[in-house]
Amino acid sequence: MNQFRGVIPPVVTPLTADHRLDVESYRRSIDRMIAAGVNGLFVLGSSSEVVFSTDERRREILAAAIEIAGGRVPVLAGCIDTETNRVIEHARAAREMGAAAIVATAPFYALGGVAEIERHFRLIHAAVPELPLFAYDIPVCVHTKLPNDLLIRLGRDGVLAGVKDSSNDDVAFRFLIGDNEENGHPLTLLTGQEVVVDGAYMAGADGSVPGLANVDPYGYVAMWNAYRNGDWDSVRKEQNKLAALMRIVLAPSGVQGFGSGVGAFKTAMALLGVFDTNQMPEPVLALHGDNVKAIADVLRACGFELARTVEQVDVSTE
Amino acid sequence: MNQFRGVIPPVVTPLTADHRLDVESYRRSIDRMIAAGVNGLFVLGSSSEVVFSTDERRREILAAAIEIAGGRVPVLAGCIDTETNRVIEHARAAREMGAAAIVATAPFYALGGVAEIERHFRLIHAAVPELPLFAYDIPVCVHTKLPNDLLIRLGRDGVLAGVKDSSNDDVAFRFLIGDNEENGHPLTLLTGQEVVVDGAYMAGADGSVPGLANVDPYGYVAMWNAYRNGDWDSVRKEQNKLAALMRIVLAPSGVQGFGSGVGAFKTAMALLGVFDTNQMPEPVLALHGDNVKAIADVLRACGFELARTVEQVDVSTE
Amino acid sequence: MNQFRGVIPPVVTPLTADHRLDVESYRRSIDRMIAAGVNGLFVLGSSSEVVFSTDERRREILAAAIEIAGGRVPVLAGCIDTETNRVIEHARAAREMGAAAIVATAPFYALGGVAEIERHFRLIHAAVPELPLFAYDIPVCVHTKLPNDLLIRLGRDGVLAGVKDSSNDDVAFRFLIGDNEENGHPLTLLTGQEVVVDGAYMAGADGSVPGLANVDPYGYVAMWNAYRNGDWDSVRKEQNKLAALMRIVLAPSGVQGFGSGVGAFKTAMALLGVFDTNQMPEPVLALHGDNVKAIADVLRACGFELARTVEQVDVSTE
Amino acid sequence: MNQFRGVIPPVVTPLTADHRLDVESYRRSIDRMIAAGVNGLFVLGSSSEVVFSTDERRREILAAAIEIAGGRVPVLAGCIDTETNRVIEHARAAREMGAAAIVATAPFYALGGVAEIERHFRLIHAAVPELPLFAYDIPVCVHTKLPNDLLIRLGRDGVLAGVKDSSNDDVAFRFLIGDNEENGHPLTLLTGQEVVVDGAYMAGADGSVPGLANVDPYGYVAMWNAYRNGDWDSVRKEQNKLAALMRIVLAPSGVQGFGSGVGAFKTAMALLGVFDTNQMPEPVLALHGDNVKAIADVLRACGFELARTVEQVDVSTE
Repeated sequence: MNQFRGVIPPVVTPLTADHRLDVESYRRSIDRMIAAGVNGLFVLGSSSEVVFSTDERRREILAAAIEIAGGRVPVLAGCIDTETNRVIEHARAAREMGAAAIVATAPFYALGGVAEIERHFRLIHAAVPELPLFAYDIPVCVHTKLPNDLLIRLGRDGVLAGVKDSSNDDVAFRFLIGDNEENGHPLTLLTGQEVVVDGAYMAGADGSVPGLANVDPYGYVAMWNAYRNGDWDSVRKEQNKLAALMRIVLAPSGVQGFGSGVGAFKTAMALLGVFDTNQMPEPVLALHGDNVKAIADVLRACGFELARTVEQVDVSTE
Repeated sequence: MNQFRGVIPPVVTPLTADHRLDVESYRRSIDRMIAAGVNGLFVLGSSSEVVFSTDERRREILAAAIEIAGGRVPVLAGCIDTETNRVIEHARAAREMGAAAIVATAPFYALGGVAEIERHFRLIHAAVPELPLFAYDIPVCVHTKLPNDLLIRLGRDGVLAGVKDSSNDDVAFRFLIGDNEENGHPLTLLTGQEVVVDGAYMAGADGSVPGLANVDPYGYVAMWNAYRNGDWDSVRKEQNKLAALMRIVLAPSGVQGFGSGVGAFKTAMALLGVFDTNQMPEPVLALHGDNVKAIADVLRACGFELARTVEQVDVSTE
Repeated sequence: MNQFRGVIPPVVTPLTADHRLDVESYRRSIDRMIAAGVNGLFVLGSSSEVVFSTDERRREILAAAIEIAGGRVPVLAGCIDTETNRVIEHARAAREMGAAAIVATAPFYALGGVAEIERHFRLIHAAVPELPLFAYDIPVCVHTKLPNDLLIRLGRDGVLAGVKDSSNDDVAFRFLIGDNEENGHPLTLLTGQEVVVDGAYMAGADGSVPGLANVDPYGYVAMWNAYRNGDWDSVRKEQNKLAALMRIVLAPSGVQGFGSGVGAFKTAMALLGVFDTNQMPEPVLALHGDNVKAIADVLRACGFELARTVEQVDVSTE
Repeated sequence: MNQFRGVIPPVVTPLTADHRLDVESYRRSIDRMIAAGVNGLFVLGSSSEVVFSTDERRREILAAAIEIAGGRVPVLAGCIDTETNRVIEHARAAREMGAAAIVATAPFYALGGVAEIERHFRLIHAAVPELPLFAYDIPVCVHTKLPNDLLIRLGRDGVLAGVKDSSNDDVAFRFLIGDNEENGHPLTLLTGQEVVVDGAYMAGADGSVPGLANVDPYGYVAMWNAYRNGDWDSVRKEQNKLAALMRIVLAPSGVQGFGSGVGAFKTAMALLGVFDTNQMPEPVLALHGDNVKAIADVLRACGFELARTVEQVDVSTE
């Protein structure tokens, strides 16, 4: 039985106004996702603000998630850093804290070729062989696309257990799924998409890692269950609702990248009463003013009831 | 009734060995696609080798297609050129030859901003108002992604009749479909994907423009009909078969871009007996040697019977 | 004697308010550049708005330049188009009109690999062997960087006579100059830079093709002469003055790319009384309002006397 | 007096065969550079393999450099990491160890807009106000180009003391130098170029940070001194010799990026007897086989005598 199938949200990290980890909000959010029926939690990925976090903060975030999950679902730990030796340090820490699997990207900042990427994953697996290793394919952040033949080779050799595909290249992902089938399914293939997860399920994905599942875990679990039942009309219906909700990330103006994406998730979760604040890690400012209002409007249009007013969430009105 | 829905293949242009238009092969291919049930033909798009063709050759390609189609299906004419005035010349020629619609990209080579792109489409429509105008969103060629709000604005203003989306950004495309619905569906939205068309149908696309439909029009028509009938299992099954067939474009080695993509289509069609040669426009060489064999292997693995041997198609063995 | 050394401005094309070629302004500008001592004229390059011009307009622009130049300096003709056969049509037309040399980029829109680029240049030279062929290396427009080893090979084989380097990669350019020396200087190497031409001369360039020389041909000629005399202090002094003048292209706000670059050149030339208007080709609008004023301010700060007021040039005040 | 002018090599880090810091080789190299007359040392930059190094290794590298330099020249410490809080940790460590200045890039991996970049530098300076802060503009690694107006604003506000420009955009750099002059020279502007440093000096740079100075510090010091004396012929002559030497980084085949660049520096230094090995940090392999020979050939062609044979350096022959 593959324990890493299904909906595995990349867990967004709540902060207090003064930038500490907000454990109570974290507990509310994780408990809510587990209650909704998610199949695992991916902690310390891009959405968890891993690259904004010091080593100490990373340990704090991962330890809290494992404690809160309490074995109800597996916790996958992102080990995101520039090059091999730094990644291995994170991987060893994750092993000691009890992560169920580790997740690593290709090297970044200093680039090389495919040979270095392959050696990178082999060295990580050799250093922490006890834990399944997932490759995190995220060219928008690391500026390298992992080639399908490399992934399959590492899967067949037992180096990789799976792939989290955040490449936004669904054509390559479908070919990867086909290659994986032909090779006996060595890899668990998870899509990082949010609004075209139905297409990834059509293609045969083993699960999804949607950041938006922090805001609405119920919808993604319902879509996964419909997929498992072959009920494509329901898959489509759920995806359409979630695509409408994803417009929260398009709503802010004057903000780009992480600040509008994860910023919108945090703001929605604050409006829904899951998080106490929508605070962001330095040097990113929390969404404020009209941007909070714009997100509230999307939530209401999607039928959500807000637990807090725009003014309560918008720190600029304090 | 919208006459531009369904499967509208971008028609590949057959050449003789000495680089003339091969009208007989063209007739065989177009008749075969119409017999399979395609809903229209897109001529002089990227796959038609439009940018390799002189003005005279463009007219020859378009005139032949319109003559062969003979009104059985509408013919959309690509008017692909660097900037507005040159595009308008092509658009007027297409109008005189009887095209049913025209298709234009954003300006390329010299780039500007969104204001210039908007003015570009408005000027084209003003010059040839009798013909529906489709925007062709193909950033891999023109290095600009058409923004959704621009497309919707031009649709509402009656400037654009539709969009051919070859952006490979299925997330943006799903948001575009949602925006289009909210605005009363002013645009006919066609995906240029080949292996994730099922996902585009899940998202609500009005049709598809898959280059691979030159090789297997029956599969794409079957997928479209299944989609119209809400038979998602058949949609998925057809797509999976076509995804396997699309591996002909991954099969060649040592060749990139147009030479491997359209080169693979032409080679497959020559092996299937639809085209007499797999000749390519200068400066691109026809696929030859092991690359022909690799494509033949994919075709056979997908259950196709070959009308010609590898040696008959491979010009390097002459 | 190499007739293509020295300062060879890419000639900006003046338009009337109603978008016709303004031959009188053209004559004033070309006569002024020749009087200043330029060594040649590059017509139908990017700055000549070649990709905005229909075939008929291209012929008009080139014929007028050759007529005005009257043999005083050689006229190089840009043959800029997407792929080989279209380029060859332009090259033959240039030959018939009496161009001294032709200039072609790598193929664009549909990309391939180095093999296609090499075949492209060889086919152009084979079709018009009477004229020296320059490669125009401009990745910002064609999205391919011409590799140094390809350029040297084509130079040694007599296919290329030279290179106009607009790659903004001065490191590669210096290596190219070194390679060219080692191979007996088969190529005439011209930099397309404007504000770091002194560095290109330090590296050993054979000349420059600066768009800004339309505005101030005297400065570039003075810098070239200083370089020929080994008077580096004067080279530097002239370059610093021209770098200050080049700020006209940074002055406009809300406009990008061709509209701000060539737009600024045209606006400066209208303010200086060389051009009658600063009209731009569709779909680009002429610079207007505060952007004209900003350019006038730079000109004055650089010591130029204006022949026309901002209001006279700014069409938005009409 | 500005203590950060002149030649400040980014110090390459020598490793033992088993990947420990090779302090004896480090001492030889740093002593050699100081003896040659360099004006400072930049430690823990890209060439120092900073992103390959754990926190412990970073401290080891910096402490050794400061100890070896012994106050003879200032040591600037790179504080290269993904986002603000991690950079601040490195900056505080550098302060405790006695660095003379700190150097930081824009945030990377998770991108935002200019507002976040500005806040990033302001927060770093606020956390370690005692040390001059240099911005490291290296878009090839961080995928953001620092805008000139931001740099000038941060310079005027006392946040930034200078810029190390590794953008390879010499046009922007020349404009930056002009802006800096107009604003009273708040920033010390250093070029990271190697083969067009003469052009940067023509433009008015305050110094250079060339990786190649690890291999030949004498040449870069001679060029700097010639520049200070206004002896442009000598500047040019030295640069041409160094450009020929820089071909060591083009010599390796089958290797890309950091592996060929810093790999070539280490291999050259091993051949010259400065380093004991050409070992590289994981996951990069040391250059070996024909690549070592190719570098030796360039060194000899440039007139260097080799202290070791190719076989002695090439670990693959062991």
